Amino acid sequence: MFSFGNFLTLSTFGESHGEAYGGIIQNVPAGLTIDFKAIQHQLNRRRPGQSSLVTQRKESDTVTFLSGIFEGRTTGTPIGFHIRNEDQKPKDYQHLADTYRPSHADFTYEQKYGIRDYRGGGRSSARETLNWVAAGALAKQLIPEVQIQAYVSSVGEIFCEKPYQKLDLSKTDDSEIRCPDPHTAARMTAEVKRIKKEGNTIGGTITCVVRNLPAGIGEPVFGKLQAELAKAMMNINAAKGFEYGSGFCGAKMTGAEHNDIFNPDFTTKTNLSGGIQGGISNGMDVYFRVAFKPVATLLRPQPSVDRDGQPVTLEGRGRHDACVVPRAVPIVENLAAFVLADLMLINKLRTF
Amino acid sequence: MFSFGNFLTLSTFGESHGEAYGGIIQNVPAGLTIDFKAIQHQLNRRRPGQSSLVTQRKESDTVTFLSGIFEGRTTGTPIGFHIRNEDQKPKDYQHLADTYRPSHADFTYEQKYGIRDYRGGGRSSARETLNWVAAGALAKQLIPEVQIQAYVSSVGEIFCEKPYQKLDLSKTDDSEIRCPDPHTAARMTAEVKRIKKEGNTIGGTITCVVRNLPAGIGEPVFGKLQAELAKAMMNINAAKGFEYGSGFCGAKMTGAEHNDIFNPDFTTKTNLSGGIQGGISNGMDVYFRVAFKPVATLLRPQPSVDRDGQPVTLEGRGRHDACVVPRAVPIVENLAAFVLADLMLINKLRTF
Amino acid sequence: MFSFGNFLTLSTFGESHGEAYGGIIQNVPAGLTIDFKAIQHQLNRRRPGQSSLVTQRKESDTVTFLSGIFEGRTTGTPIGFHIRNEDQKPKDYQHLADTYRPSHADFTYEQKYGIRDYRGGGRSSARETLNWVAAGALAKQLIPEVQIQAYVSSVGEIFCEKPYQKLDLSKTDDSEIRCPDPHTAARMTAEVKRIKKEGNTIGGTITCVVRNLPAGIGEPVFGKLQAELAKAMMNINAAKGFEYGSGFCGAKMTGAEHNDIFNPDFTTKTNLSGGIQGGISNGMDVYFRVAFKPVATLLRPQPSVDRDGQPVTLEGRGRHDACVVPRAVPIVENLAAFVLADLMLINKLRTF
Amino acid sequence: MFSFGNFLTLSTFGESHGEAYGGIIQNVPAGLTIDFKAIQHQLNRRRPGQSSLVTQRKESDTVTFLSGIFEGRTTGTPIGFHIRNEDQKPKDYQHLADTYRPSHADFTYEQKYGIRDYRGGGRSSARETLNWVAAGALAKQLIPEVQIQAYVSSVGEIFCEKPYQKLDLSKTDDSEIRCPDPHTAARMTAEVKRIKKEGNTIGGTITCVVRNLPAGIGEPVFGKLQAELAKAMMNINAAKGFEYGSGFCGAKMTGAEHNDIFNPDFTTKTNLSGGIQGGISNGMDVYFRVAFKPVATLLRPQPSVDRDGQPVTLEGRGRHDACVVPRAVPIVENLAAFVLADLMLINKLRTF
Repeated sequence: MFSFGNFLTLSTFGESHGEAYGGIIQNVPAGLTIDFKAIQHQLNRRRPGQSSLVTQRKESDTVTFLSGIFEGRTTGTPIGFHIRNEDQKPKDYQHLADTYRPSHADFTYEQKYGIRDYRGGGRSSARETLNWVAAGALAKQLIPEVQIQAYVSSVGEIFCEKPYQKLDLSKTDDSEIRCPDPHTAARMTAEVKRIKKEGNTIGGTITCVVRNLPAGIGEPVFGKLQAELAKAMMNINAAKGFEYGSGFCGAKMTGAEHNDIFNPDFTTKTNLSGGIQGGISNGMDVYFRVAFKPVATLLRPQPSVDRDGQPVTLEGRGRHDACVVPRAVPIVENLAAFVLADLMLINKLRTF
Repeated sequence: MFSFGNFLTLSTFGESHGEAYGGIIQNVPAGLTIDFKAIQHQLNRRRPGQSSLVTQRKESDTVTFLSGIFEGRTTGTPIGFHIRNEDQKPKDYQHLADTYRPSHADFTYEQKYGIRDYRGGGRSSARETLNWVAAGALAKQLIPEVQIQAYVSSVGEIFCEKPYQKLDLSKTDDSEIRCPDPHTAARMTAEVKRIKKEGNTIGGTITCVVRNLPAGIGEPVFGKLQAELAKAMMNINAAKGFEYGSGFCGAKMTGAEHNDIFNPDFTTKTNLSGGIQGGISNGMDVYFRVAFKPVATLLRPQPSVDRDGQPVTLEGRGRHDACVVPRAVPIVENLAAFVLADLMLINKLRTF
Repeated sequence: MFSFGNFLTLSTFGESHGEAYGGIIQNVPAGLTIDFKAIQHQLNRRRPGQSSLVTQRKESDTVTFLSGIFEGRTTGTPIGFHIRNEDQKPKDYQHLADTYRPSHADFTYEQKYGIRDYRGGGRSSARETLNWVAAGALAKQLIPEVQIQAYVSSVGEIFCEKPYQKLDLSKTDDSEIRCPDPHTAARMTAEVKRIKKEGNTIGGTITCVVRNLPAGIGEPVFGKLQAELAKAMMNINAAKGFEYGSGFCGAKMTGAEHNDIFNPDFTTKTNLSGGIQGGISNGMDVYFRVAFKPVATLLRPQPSVDRDGQPVTLEGRGRHDACVVPRAVPIVENLAAFVLADLMLINKLRTF
Repeated sequence: MFSFGNFLTLSTFGESHGEAYGGIIQNVPAGLTIDFKAIQHQLNRRRPGQSSLVTQRKESDTVTFLSGIFEGRTTGTPIGFHIRNEDQKPKDYQHLADTYRPSHADFTYEQKYGIRDYRGGGRSSARETLNWVAAGALAKQLIPEVQIQAYVSSVGEIFCEKPYQKLDLSKTDDSEIRCPDPHTAARMTAEVKRIKKEGNTIGGTITCVVRNLPAGIGEPVFGKLQAELAKAMMNINAAKGFEYGSGFCGAKMTGAEHNDIFNPDFTTKTNLSGGIQGGISNGMDVYFRVAFKPVATLLRPQPSVDRDGQPVTLEGRGRHDACVVPRAVPIVENLAAFVLADLMLINKLRTF
């Protein structure tokens, strides 16, 4: 639980206003030619300050690989990397040293550790997901045949009504909001702008689709494919829920409606199973949905308390997302890539 | 991923029609006086054949502890246990040796391993949850101060509309369906009976409430409390979704609505956070909901295919649940207990 | 550290006078046909009461496999097994409840856990190695091409002077003492009989030779082949030292003497490296030696203390080895097999 | 096996001529005030170029901590650190790209990975121990009450005859060779100089003594204190053997000689057990000895082969140790500190 992954593993470090983020990826097989640009591209997709919708923190978020790669290829030994924090303004946070922000981790970290790096949330900052995107984008290169595509499927009450099969997921990045349906994207964008103007924030959901995953991936009891994905996604800071296949709707259905009947080629006529049976992929599309709460930092006054329980008024300053889901799209995608690459590696050892 | 837990761990084995289930629990601290009856009581709650709603397989499901306990107290060494399968009828399954049942793990196990114990699903059977209930019920005794209560919050389209705060959760077992609201319980029961008469099955949801969990529990990055709970729950065979606190509803809300404002005593006025901030408990109630799909075995004919892709007609025989959620209540509760006991142990090492 | 192995893992339980020993082996690949007789044969080799030299405890030490094997072949799922204790005489140990035996684990267990199963040493008994032999003998079947042979290379001051290359290791079991050189075996046997008559015990060493191990096995930094072997061997109860290749003698040599010069076919002219360079096998024989202390239970009076520090006199009763090394031979062999099978499995993932 | 430690863990990366070494230390409890100078002091003790006896590579070996420490105190979150390589001369190694050095890891890495960073041994370089010293020196600060002292107890055939109890271990660093007995130190130093002049190298042993370790440390079956120490030490690049307490000598003794008889205060009259019984510390001194082979790089011509098996002549260049043990002293000490700090943390969870 202190690292991520089972055989392919990621250990990380970093705080929002420390010197650097970074990590170590272990057990990447030797001989993989790394596409560094593809990795940086994913970090750029996650980077703040790309649009009017997201936080304006100025960082290049450039990843540097320090080991495990020789003449462009992996050597099989640990891959160390780091990403410097360039826009550290710890002084901006001095006023928070003795204050607990609502629905942040300030109070809980202090309860747990008796000490807290209050600068921008310290270790609790979502900047940590930089590490995950870097590692996931590298892991993705181990499984080039698998296609993993996430997109924003709702913002507040605005849902993308079309099922993923009717969307062109290659167009996700065409809109700032990262919804591949242009009409819905426009409505979502307008909603976020409205909310932002109020100094408020709003939640949303991301749907992720995995195509071309071979059958047989996932471990049957404690490492079910859906459980490994759920664990990964629920570790993203603002995630509040996870469902796959029929999800919560499936709980309303009958078995006669829900069962996926086989075709003679072992595909299934429906896919309410979400491509997973008994914790193991069956070769159909795997798809899941993650719910994200609204960002807790508001650009308007909120009541809170200080360490002594005395009332204070807080107001966030100018660099926060009004809606987290667009930037969470590459996080979901690359984290899923890491989970799948790990499970696919392990699966190679399953038969004698 | 092959065992469960991080410091307090559970390794298990067993197949539906093998000789026994069993497991090893490691790192239970020494000196705990074990209440064996309380453990067997939880197994009895999970046992099939208790009511007209669930499978009639006749098993005593008696757990025997083989080590790690001396004169009634834990010694700190591994606790081995087993639970014999008494109602093995492997011949009942011979006809399934070359057939894949819809929405079961038959096809995926065979894809993964090239071999499959077809008797009652083998390792993929939900009988494995016996092990989890036994281990969880023991782990629960490590954290007697924490109260963990699960109940059926929906069956098909019938929802328990009252929030958990308005229910008397001590009455959950008063109805076969395990919904603590008598009126809703009656409606749910009628619905399951109707569905069962049709040879059909139906899904549902379980809500679980954790009270008296101290602040500070959960690890901040890869072992967030919600992620550990999600992973555990999504490993239950029929689980399709997990949400905590505001969950998927939270994704529709604004930050101004969603933020939990502090009281001077550091409780919060609302609890949309579900008792967790930054992956760490804050001392408020932790609550979550799990969606379960309908049981895939139907007591009426269904089309399927055999190993050669040829069409066959399958019909389940007389011992299957029409609705899995009542029996899943003790699974959710005891699995949650294991997760919490593990995290609470680890938390003792958090400060110098 | 609570289980054994890295991908192929063994978790165990059991106490000397509890109901049973047992364990769970995880991640054995599917499709291996198990030779059950070969496993029981290794347990029989370890069994007490086989000769005049070793303890007379009467146990059949029969292993029963409970899961993970279907129609004689592994299914890829966890393999549970147990071995019943048949000769439990806990009353024999009542007098030890408040006494600490010299050079046993009585005092340390009580210091650690505050409670102790005093019956025959409880968890600290070397009967635990039953589990290791069973699991190792199964793991051996995953790597049939590798030959692992251990033998007694010294008893007290009597050494087998011939190097392993000049011994016929297939003859190890021809003598009770398990030294393949008949002349040395006779001298060792006489020495043990002499020591036994005095109610005393004596130490010894075991040498183990691994042939046909392919090059490339072992992990370069924290999982060096020699470190994994050392860890395994030093977990055997009476082990006091481990060396491989040139071992402690190598510390007296110069580099010019010690370096193994390559032949054109990449074998080496000498093999002071013991078949391992940089933690990774090079295709030459791997050989190592383990030192075992004399058994601490003496069949003659010894002074000791009780829980209050008061002097007591202890005298072991009639069922203890005068020399542990003959019975440790199958322990060393099968434990080494487990380590190697684990590392060879992992190594399959080393290249892309 | 890919990281070091069980609860307190160290993951590392780095190659001899890559950009940096570094690592992540996890689960250091919050609230520890770090003495940075003490850590750097240990790195300085290990640094090459300190005396005429060791390699002259010019590096400052300065460790930089990047996270997990706030205002001088640990926060409980991962501690990332790095150590830059400043004296990279990869061109010096171009001639080794197609050549295998005798008794180095060149051949085995290539067999394992199919690719090899040939610059100074890449990942197989003992420069990796920098990471271990940094982490161990930090871990040491978690257990200030425990005294861990290593010293050179032999070089080639020259042994320090006095037992550790008769040496003043605070004087170890007084001589370049790190033997606390001045007379023996002088003889050792002369021997190394003689060997060096010949372009040759020589092996040696290090003895390590742990005082004030409380009783109860170590896990009873797979994590015995001696096994954890053995594993750690045998992962040091040149280590060939490990023994503790009576060690290999104990294998020549009888039980009557070897048993440590208790005093009324539970200390023992002798300490052949080396402070460990049943894998758990008993409160007496823990002591062990590690054998190191001679450095394989010689400053004189040696025959070897290239990748095609063709003969080549190799000659090391001017920056290699003639005897590795003086620089290995801080490695042994700090690695032991890490092992002990890890086990002492875990031990806090042993009782209810």
